[in-house]
This record gives sequence, C-alpha cells and structure tokens, in this order.
Amino acid sequence: MTNRIVHGGGITAAASLYGGRSEDWLDLSTGINPNPIVLPDISISAWHRLPDQHLVERAREAARAHYRSGDILPLPVPGTQSVIQLLPRLGSASGVAILSPTYGEYARAFALAGLPVRKIAGIGDLDSEQKLVVAVNPNNPDGRALPIEQLRELHDRLRQRGGMLVVDEAFGDMEPENSVAPYASSMPNLIIFRSFGKFFGLAGLRLGFVIAQASILERFEDWLGPWAVSGPALSLAASLMAGDTTSIRNRIFDRRSALDAVLRQAKLEVVGGTGLFALVADDRASDIYSHLCRHHILVRKFDYAPNWLRFGLAPDEEADHRLAGVLEDYSI
Amino acid sequence: MTNRIVHGGGITAAASLYGGRSEDWLDLSTGINPNPIVLPDISISAWHRLPDQHLVERAREAARAHYRSGDILPLPVPGTQSVIQLLPRLGSASGVAILSPTYGEYARAFALAGLPVRKIAGIGDLDSEQKLVVAVNPNNPDGRALPIEQLRELHDRLRQRGGMLVVDEAFGDMEPENSVAPYASSMPNLIIFRSFGKFFGLAGLRLGFVIAQASILERFEDWLGPWAVSGPALSLAASLMAGDTTSIRNRIFDRRSALDAVLRQAKLEVVGGTGLFALVADDRASDIYSHLCRHHILVRKFDYAPNWLRFGLAPDEEADHRLAGVLEDYSI
Repeated sequence: MTNRIVHGGGITAAASLYGGRSEDWLDLSTGINPNPIVLPDISISAWHRLPDQHLVERAREAARAHYRSGDILPLPVPGTQSVIQLLPRLGSASGVAILSPTYGEYARAFALAGLPVRKIAGIGDLDSEQKLVVAVNPNNPDGRALPIEQLRELHDRLRQRGGMLVVDEAFGDMEPENSVAPYASSMPNLIIFRSFGKFFGLAGLRLGFVIAQASILERFEDWLGPWAVSGPALSLAASLMAGDTTSIRNRIFDRRSALDAVLRQAKLEVVGGTGLFALVADDRASDIYSHLCRHHILVRKFDYAPNWLRFGLAPDEEADHRLAGVLEDYSI
Repeated sequence: MTNRIVHGGGITAAASLYGGRSEDWLDLSTGINPNPIVLPDISISAWHRLPDQHLVERAREAARAHYRSGDILPLPVPGTQSVIQLLPRLGSASGVAILSPTYGEYARAFALAGLPVRKIAGIGDLDSEQKLVVAVNPNNPDGRALPIEQLRELHDRLRQRGGMLVVDEAFGDMEPENSVAPYASSMPNLIIFRSFGKFFGLAGLRLGFVIAQASILERFEDWLGPWAVSGPALSLAASLMAGDTTSIRNRIFDRRSALDAVLRQAKLEVVGGTGLFALVADDRASDIYSHLCRHHILVRKFDYAPNWLRFGLAPDEEADHRLAGVLEDYSI
C-alpha cells in the first residue's frame, strides 16, 4: 500500500473515533455543494445498457456548452481521480512540477509511477528541465487563482520545449470567468480537468471531464477503455448541464457567505478558499479540530500545514447555527 | 486512436445505417440479462457524498457471500474493463498468453502497452516463457469451460515460475459451480474478474469485482485511486447481492431456453454459449446478420470468425416471436 492520503469525507472513521451515528455528524470536510440537486429522471435504459455512443454525445455537447470549450467536445471520465492516475503515462521522466501545496493525489500518482516530482511554490520557480506542469486553479485548499494570461504564457513556454500544462479546474464552476476552457482550442499542449460532482452536489456519481485537443483526448479514451463512465452519470450530466445552473450558483454563494459570517463571528481568520470552502489559518487549529470532532463536526486538517483548517459549506441555517454554537463554546 | 474494437451494444450506429428509431430495435448484440432487476431505493447520500468506507465495506461483504470467495473480500472496480486496462502493469515483458479467441479487450490492452501477446488455443500450447495467462471462463463467445482442476494445475505451474493466472468469470454467475472463487484464498497467484452488470441486467452501472489475495488487491486499489466506484453502484451491489438471486437465475434460464427454441426452429446450429448468449455457426452468417439488421434486430458478428453469430437473450415472448418471424422470412 503506497502512502494512501486521508481525504475529506471520512465520516465513518471520525464517528468511530469520536462517537455518534455517522448520519448525525455535520460533514464540513469536503468541498462539495452540500445541497445536492433534485435528481431528474434517469431512464431505465441508462442503467441497463452499456452506455451507447448517443448518450455519450449528449453529455459531451452539454459539457461543451457548460464549460464554453468552443470547438472541443469535453471527454467524460469516471471522476478526475481516474485521469490523475493516468497522467504519468504522458511520460515525463525529464521532470514534473506541481504548484504546491495542493491536492495530494497528483504527487501520489507520479510517485507511484516512479517519476520525479518537484513541488514548486510559484511559476517563477520552474526550471528549464520540467516538461509537465500541474496547476490546480483555483487551488485547493488555499484558493490561489492564477490569471488566464499567466497560464497562457506558461503554456507557450512548455509548448516550446515539447511539454504539457495540466490545469485542474475542479473548483472552477463558481468562477467561470477564470477558466482557460474557452481558450483551450488554441492551446494544443493544455489539458484541463473539470469535476462534475462538486458543483452539482453529486460527488458519489464519479464524473469529470477532460478538455484538450482531440489527439490527447483519444489517448485518455484509449487508456480508460470503452464504457468508462456509467450510463446514469452520462444521463444526469446531459440533463443537469443543460438546466438552470444559475440558481445552483446563487445558492452556493449564499451558503459561502453564511459560512464566512459564522467564521468571522468566531474570530477565525479566513486566508483563502473557493466558492465551495473557506481556509482558516489559526495557531490553535489542532485544538479547534478536536473540539469540533467532539461535537461531531468534521472539517479538514492538513499534515503539511498544521495551522490550517478547511471548512466546507453547511447545508442550511440550522447547520450554520450548530457550527456557530460549537465554535462559540470553544472561544469561551 | 489504437484499434478500437466494435463491441455489442452499438444500436445507435446500427440504426443510422439501417434506419428505424433506436428504441424500436431489438438489441441481441450484448450478453446482458435483458430484464433489468427493479431498482431498490438508493439513498441520496450515495449520490451526494464521496463513497464512504462503510458503503464500500457493505458492498464487499455482499460480494464475498455472492461469489463465495471465503477469506477474500472482493474489490469493487468501475467495470471489468477498468482492470483489464491495468493488467499490463503487473509487468510481463517476458510474455503474455491469452486463451483465444476471446474477448478482444485483453489483447488490445497489452498491445497498447507494447507487451508481446501470444494467442493460444488451449492450455497445452503454453510454452515455458509465458508468465501471465488470461483465461475467460466460461469463454466469450464460444462458451468453452475449463474445469476447475485444470485451472488449479495451470495456476500451480505459473506460480512456480513466478507467473500469474487471470481468470475472467464475467459470464460466471449462471454457473457458480464452475467458479474458482471458492478456491482463491489458496491460490496466491490467481486474479479473478467478475462482472456485476451482466447478470443483474445493469450494464450501464459499470461495476465489477476483483478477487485475489490482499497484496494484489491493494495494487489494483492504488492504481485505480480513491473513490473509483460510484456511490449508487456500491449501494445497489450491497442490496442486490444480498437479495433473491435465484429468481433472476431462473428467469435467465427460461429466456435462454426460449432463444434455443427459436434458433432450433430456424435450423441454426448452436455451437456454444453461456447462460446469457448462444453462439451460432453458419456459412450464411454474414447474410443472416444483414437480414436481421434490415428488420432492426442487432446480433454480434466476428471479424475473426465470419461464420459465427452471437445471439443475446430476448426480453420476452413477444421479442422471441419477432426474432422467430424474421428468421423464418430468411429461410423461405
């Protein structure tokens, strides 16, 4: 077993340590919309049949409109994680750079494949060796956002040396104006990963999209093999991406504002975040984490930054009050 | 694009060639139970949350009982295809042998990874070089069944040379007495693939299981990464595998008998098959295939065996009559 990373979402494990029924815990450890959209009907044929080309095409068309990817039909994949695992196959024995700290699975996937990785703090730290650069944008967990212009420049530099730029926009749905997807058709050495489940509140579905030029998408398609994405996931993607996303976005903004108000009231300093979570820096982070756990609220802590805590969105005002109450207890 | 294989299930493509609305076609091109089970409730949390360890464990326990795998908790994977793609990572530059002809994705996956493959007609053709042997059992499409004793002997031979045996039991649910799963805990160099969707009629779900010793399962788990299987798939697996499978099995047997009767009446010779399909050998196969397509019935043909046609199960008597009528037209 290679260095498994503990991610958000481990309510069962937390409940076994701190007690309580897992369904009574308030899970703020993920970056997922806490209000899953009401599921539209899924036809029985989506469950029954191997996903047909027609179903795949409907989902791809809906994704093209949703991500505004122009000429490019995004490729559906069974979660971003599935393609992170494949990145080492793009082959870069000559060096991989990951803008860090960030989502840990990138470093893990390259390490598993025996490829050397350099964690760099900013684009300026890149040396002339690295041919594959990974940037999560906006970044998880600190929310650092790289301007489109910088990403285009970085792409052009990498392209000149035959390299590739991977931009993970898993948390990009709340800030579509910062996405490079609309420029992807003129950036041949760019690969964008998008996550479906976070914004729509359907993380259990395992669905993501890759946006890149056709020859790159074909390689991912070959590596994943046929029918990589489930019929229900394709069917939901086709319906939901063509539906009303404004009200989902507004509801997420409201929830994020409510979280900020609770954290402000508790005198916790928000140092970053995205639409779907807030990052708090506090020297008492470890204590606060344990205090929250004792009250059956789970947030995300970080081995590499012991003063950070990531708070996901609470589903409603009742949950806001619960969090506020527990944090107030702590400060007393 | 590397040699994509045309599999069953391409109704959209067939309808665009031969006309008709795809939902009016009778799809006999797959080996999937044509009567999907009535879906049990799936909790909203299975859709919403990243699949929790607790949900994974429930599915694994249900699979252990269903496959009778003893000490081994089968690993859920997003379809057998996802792990076929990973097989080359087990590393066998020294040679891979595939009992052939069989499901084409094995050869494709090794070819894509640049590994030499020998297609062998029987175990006797194995030479001392090959360290990784793939046997689909019962075999697709001819239904050839290797006795458990032969598989155990083969396993022991491979084990002595540090090799591995992969047994794909995708069509094994109808003949549990021929499965090696109950012996797996005493066969350390064995890897079994099981398919969930074929028997339950839920191929769109993308779910399979791997049965092997823990250290091998951990490698697959690392390669797939976290949350490889969707929440709804895990939830359904846990419910359905613990439910009444006898009535599903009986219904499939009935449908298979009905198919045999139709083929017999049409004077077509069944030369093999499994519980979920029949293989017909006929010199007029190509003509019969086109005739069926003109009447909007799709069966499976094989480039490598132009006299073969594979017939999947029709869902009900009405469909039996439709197939019988179209075949009768042909023979007139």
